[in-house]
Amino acid sequence: MLSYQIVPRRDETNATGHIDHKVIPAWFENARSPIYELFNPGLSPRTWNTVIRKMDIEYLGQIFQKKKTVVETSIGNIRNTSFEVIQQLWQENKLTATGTTVIVHFDYEANNKIRIPEPIREKLLQLKNNKTV
Amino acid sequence: MLSYQIVPRRDETNATGHIDHKVIPAWFENARSPIYELFNPGLSPRTWNTVIRKMDIEYLGQIFQKKKTVVETSIGNIRNTSFEVIQQLWQENKLTATGTTVIVHFDYEANNKIRIPEPIREKLLQLKNNKTV
Amino acid sequence: MLSYQIVPRRDETNATGHIDHKVIPAWFENARSPIYELFNPGLSPRTWNTVIRKMDIEYLGQIFQKKKTVVETSIGNIRNTSFEVIQQLWQENKLTATGTTVIVHFDYEANNKIRIPEPIREKLLQLKNNKTV
Amino acid sequence: MLSYQIVPRRDETNATGHIDHKVIPAWFENARSPIYELFNPGLSPRTWNTVIRKMDIEYLGQIFQKKKTVVETSIGNIRNTSFEVIQQLWQENKLTATGTTVIVHFDYEANNKIRIPEPIREKLLQLKNNKTV
Repeated sequence: MLSYQIVPRRDETNATGHIDHKVIPAWFENARSPIYELFNPGLSPRTWNTVIRKMDIEYLGQIFQKKKTVVETSIGNIRNTSFEVIQQLWQENKLTATGTTVIVHFDYEANNKIRIPEPIREKLLQLKNNKTV
Repeated sequence: MLSYQIVPRRDETNATGHIDHKVIPAWFENARSPIYELFNPGLSPRTWNTVIRKMDIEYLGQIFQKKKTVVETSIGNIRNTSFEVIQQLWQENKLTATGTTVIVHFDYEANNKIRIPEPIREKLLQLKNNKTV
Repeated sequence: MLSYQIVPRRDETNATGHIDHKVIPAWFENARSPIYELFNPGLSPRTWNTVIRKMDIEYLGQIFQKKKTVVETSIGNIRNTSFEVIQQLWQENKLTATGTTVIVHFDYEANNKIRIPEPIREKLLQLKNNKTV
Repeated sequence: MLSYQIVPRRDETNATGHIDHKVIPAWFENARSPIYELFNPGLSPRTWNTVIRKMDIEYLGQIFQKKKTVVETSIGNIRNTSFEVIQQLWQENKLTATGTTVIVHFDYEANNKIRIPEPIREKLLQLKNNKTV
């Protein structure tokens, strides 16, 4: 499991005084950096090689700007060309949101899905197993 | 069914040259304005009275900046305090994304869900039924 | 002079009910697309070759979501490696913001400013002169 | 002088691999929170009482996601209804951007500028003088 600390910004709150729901996909995406790093070491935008296929988010409670905020990231199902990222948003021991994102290994030149290479698959598996250890 | 035209912006593309996945929740939210208008006529941010409980998005194909873009919005299940909004993103006759959002009628002062009033429920039902007409 | 129509989005308003000041740089950047196109035909992010050196914005009045919105763009001083873009934001015959942006022709590989090529300089000059015609 | 640490986010970089220029106004706005707090204690969006009149930003060098980032904020001229905020963006001892923002004390109900109250003016002056101490 990966742990990623977010410092919420005041301009991420909306008129209700709480963090806007559209901010959470961005937090989750930032917290997935170590996973993107497996596919694209150095994270250069010019060699980007994944695409989002699906994103499900549940909002479980109000999310506050001033609370300590951590995203925990683990791995779900791993398939031929895609895998699931499972994420939890914690604010001071309260689970405030969960998310599942399906990510596809993708060749933007060929406009094609590609099989996840074995070395990356192994690292994803490691992340997945850590979760339940 | 509600139809809402989006003019994609160049700064909504990312390094891959396609619309970033995080933009779609914003487009869908904008397309839901007539629904928020039912709950909060005039849409004043100071009297906002709904909250997002869940958001599921499927990305079905690459989304382009230069294509004509329409979001179609209809209503799914309607419950006591919440309801589903079902949305489709179309680019030139291609369905490129779908979304389901669960919205709760909410009193921010009392920090409580509230029952959807009958007149609003009827309008939601109308929207829901138009869908299949 | 270039004319670019913006459709303001509801999620670009903030708690005051007006368009947030941080949105205007994005609108102006979108309206500069034809200028970026001179430097980088096709606008591929992978061959991007300009950088922003300076941005001055004056906010002259409240900016509303529901009003028809046009950005007018012209060219100011043109120097060896940089030039000024001068922009005005109009809402229904009211000038609501102005901006001046200094853009540098830039080689990201070499990490160096580069001279604006003559054919591009001529097109910038044309734009500049149209302004006063 | 106020010091505010920013943790840059990966999704704030653009296709060039550097922080996008449009992100800096947001960082500066977040760093101004203690100043907004003087005008609107608690920072409730529903009692917001300032408006941005002018924003000038100079970009002095490339801004990186992975570098330690601090915004330093001080006060410039103080007038009847408005004042200047002067900001510097530092990344590891390199000044990478500067900004001047003119903020007006504003009554959104009356749609009118209002005089900066004496107690707030004194606190702004204190901030201004700290700068040169």
